[in-house]
Amino acid sequence: MARSWATFGVDLHLEPTGPQLRRGLTDALREAVRSGRLPSGTRLPSSRSLAVDLGIARNTVADAYADLVAEGWLTARQGSGTRVAEGRVAPPSGAGPRRPERRAPAYDLRPGTPDLASFPRAEWLRAARRALTDAPSDALGYGDPRGRVELRTALAGYLSRARGVRADPEHLVICGGFAHGLKLLTTVLRARGTRTIAVESYGLDEHWRLLAAAGLRTVPLPFDALGTDPGEWKGPGAVLLAPAHQFPMGAPLHPDRRAAVVNRARHTGGLVLEDDYDGEFRYDRQPVGALQGLDPDHVVYLGTASKSLAPGLRLGWMVLPPGVAQEVTAAKGGVDTSGVLDQLTLAEFITSGAYDRHVRAARLRYRRRRDALVAALAARAPAIRVTGIAAGLHAVLRLPPGMEEAVVRAAAGQGLAVDGLVPRYRHPDAVTEPLDALVVGYGTPPDHAWSGALDALSRALSFGENGSGISFPGPDLG
Amino acid sequence: MARSWATFGVDLHLEPTGPQLRRGLTDALREAVRSGRLPSGTRLPSSRSLAVDLGIARNTVADAYADLVAEGWLTARQGSGTRVAEGRVAPPSGAGPRRPERRAPAYDLRPGTPDLASFPRAEWLRAARRALTDAPSDALGYGDPRGRVELRTALAGYLSRARGVRADPEHLVICGGFAHGLKLLTTVLRARGTRTIAVESYGLDEHWRLLAAAGLRTVPLPFDALGTDPGEWKGPGAVLLAPAHQFPMGAPLHPDRRAAVVNRARHTGGLVLEDDYDGEFRYDRQPVGALQGLDPDHVVYLGTASKSLAPGLRLGWMVLPPGVAQEVTAAKGGVDTSGVLDQLTLAEFITSGAYDRHVRAARLRYRRRRDALVAALAARAPAIRVTGIAAGLHAVLRLPPGMEEAVVRAAAGQGLAVDGLVPRYRHPDAVTEPLDALVVGYGTPPDHAWSGALDALSRALSFGENGSGISFPGPDLG
Repeated sequence: MARSWATFGVDLHLEPTGPQLRRGLTDALREAVRSGRLPSGTRLPSSRSLAVDLGIARNTVADAYADLVAEGWLTARQGSGTRVAEGRVAPPSGAGPRRPERRAPAYDLRPGTPDLASFPRAEWLRAARRALTDAPSDALGYGDPRGRVELRTALAGYLSRARGVRADPEHLVICGGFAHGLKLLTTVLRARGTRTIAVESYGLDEHWRLLAAAGLRTVPLPFDALGTDPGEWKGPGAVLLAPAHQFPMGAPLHPDRRAAVVNRARHTGGLVLEDDYDGEFRYDRQPVGALQGLDPDHVVYLGTASKSLAPGLRLGWMVLPPGVAQEVTAAKGGVDTSGVLDQLTLAEFITSGAYDRHVRAARLRYRRRRDALVAALAARAPAIRVTGIAAGLHAVLRLPPGMEEAVVRAAAGQGLAVDGLVPRYRHPDAVTEPLDALVVGYGTPPDHAWSGALDALSRALSFGENGSGISFPGPDLG
Repeated sequence: MARSWATFGVDLHLEPTGPQLRRGLTDALREAVRSGRLPSGTRLPSSRSLAVDLGIARNTVADAYADLVAEGWLTARQGSGTRVAEGRVAPPSGAGPRRPERRAPAYDLRPGTPDLASFPRAEWLRAARRALTDAPSDALGYGDPRGRVELRTALAGYLSRARGVRADPEHLVICGGFAHGLKLLTTVLRARGTRTIAVESYGLDEHWRLLAAAGLRTVPLPFDALGTDPGEWKGPGAVLLAPAHQFPMGAPLHPDRRAAVVNRARHTGGLVLEDDYDGEFRYDRQPVGALQGLDPDHVVYLGTASKSLAPGLRLGWMVLPPGVAQEVTAAKGGVDTSGVLDQLTLAEFITSGAYDRHVRAARLRYRRRRDALVAALAARAPAIRVTGIAAGLHAVLRLPPGMEEAVVRAAAGQGLAVDGLVPRYRHPDAVTEPLDALVVGYGTPPDHAWSGALDALSRALSFGENGSGISFPGPDLG
């Protein structure tokens, strides 16, 4: 070989001294093979001659060769010396297509995310310190597939007190948020032979897709002046509802219908899946208690920290009928799926009272935002009817028929991201007359962007009528 | 009604003052319905008369009634007053069967869990504080389904440096540990039409069960004097291997077989799933580099924090061929599944150098334990051959044929939990001659229990031959 191995060594940025020498030589040789600088079949110099070239001990080279033979980069055969192994791949083909960076809008009023800037970082860290300091070592092992008992106990107390849930820590299962809980339930339902699930005409497209991907056909229930009518769900199987606060339309499920759907589940052996995504945030009266309290044997209660704290925690919970709890645990594969440190921290956060304080402060903040939204629209787009504002982190702004797309586009022109009702929130098979509306998530912006977002929204809504605001054509929408 | 509502109020532990009055009344009435103290159909007093009885404002009572009507506990009908709704369920049926508490063994040498007492709590909390302080607010939202970019970048650097993995953060996906990663991959494989997967004759029964539950038949590969022989895997489809450190037998995959299995994957379009569960812990020489480095387009690399830090973190990672990365992301349902706080903390832990320090310290600790195990057995059970000790957190102790069950029982008699090889770690369809052996996880006990565990093990192994230790019948096992 004409190649100078000493030069090669320099190319490899070898520092031929110190305890890391063997490691450095191994890495450098591996990289040379990888990059194609040492092609397949190349015979390497003997360890003795490379050692002389590099001015290092022969054993160091022999060890590096042995490492790379063990890893499959080199082959060593009696009589043919050490060679670069055959079949090495071409040099790295690069990173593949990168996702194009989407430019973030200046303002974001899309629903679904709370004000992340108000996440109680300091309080959370204090709770984390206490929780991790107090935790027994075995809490860090493979845990109960239902989740840490500290968190299940804290949540059972909280949900019973704040949401009227009949919660036993034994039948409470921690999951990674609502979608994860729903996914686990689809496994249970499929195993029970369920193939369709009744859903509301209004909801979230992601949930419908998740259900469809799990092999459950979603059948939308009628939606009338009183809201969702679950009467067409004849059971058994399952029905998915957000009884405390219809998403995104905002009304609670009518009391008669609450009772009826639970009775139907009881008499047919079906399951009601109760999505209590933002039960904590009700402004003008006490929250509607959980449907689950009416019949814990036929209602699955699903709650989440995604709205009350932050989606990034990836923590949710299900309160389950005893039999279902076992099936869900099996669907988890018999292992806990959520990090124990966050679980222990949330348990401490709840039992110390920090959760209640946080929810109260957040409720006040969101209520002020809601009031500001209503006031701004009353002043600047008085024809817009705002609904669904008694609770939650979003409002529905009813628009004149046919205006939804135009207003969303006008908002985009103002640097404002806001969702129309139809594309994401109306079930494609819904028989309900499509309504033109915006779904405005007033929880989403951080405080400093809130008034700007409100301005942009008001401008987008006043683009018609010579800037004098949208006027509704008929009295039925007023 | 003859009943005294004032007395009833007292029964309900009402504190008829303060701002929580309405809430307290609502809760108390709900509980009375729930418990059956107010049976279905019971007509409640008018709000006026109950208010007088309780000495509180009428509106408070009316509001409480309205709450409970909205929740479905009560019904209000023109002309028939307010009644307890029909169809209330019986009083809570109790908690259902509790799991019997299994008494923990005094000593535990079952493999799979590292020494949890040495989890670096203080360092972890420091990293958590820095990570949460530095994180932008939007890190707390619904994130990239692949996981936080900070962690993917930190891991790509670490895995490239420490394990010879060719890792691009774009194709690195965070998961909740090895089992979660494997589960996601089963979805991808099933969607590609794969119905069988080659596995090693020795492995972990939980993984085989997970694969079977996902609809993949596991076909064990032969195991000979050189270890696992993947030659019978003809591709395409997939093969699951632990090339750096066969579990539990301990040998690295033979260099020729490393090259051959990667070539087979390349030529057939199959996938090698590389389980690198404890690649950091190798004691007598440098770790064998990852198989993935040989061909990142056909090897899926799976790593985990479960052995290097703690299973309770529920953090693992996959380095994937670009196409597979997209399929895995879809299998995740398009959402991140791991808590961002732990992800950001681990990223900070790695980039600050704390992870390297922790791994070095843990390696030293485990190596001392391994040495103590080998020395104790040499002194007290000299006939026992100990294998698989060059790396990892466990050793295999070969026993005379037919002795496995008896030794496990003898250990239990010493308060020591230890696993036999056959029940959990030998594939039921393996054609390999069953070996009698113990799988000893020397990482499991906390420091204070280590010498006691070692004593108990030594006693269990010396129960035969009048306490003079087990002697092997033939030279082939020596």
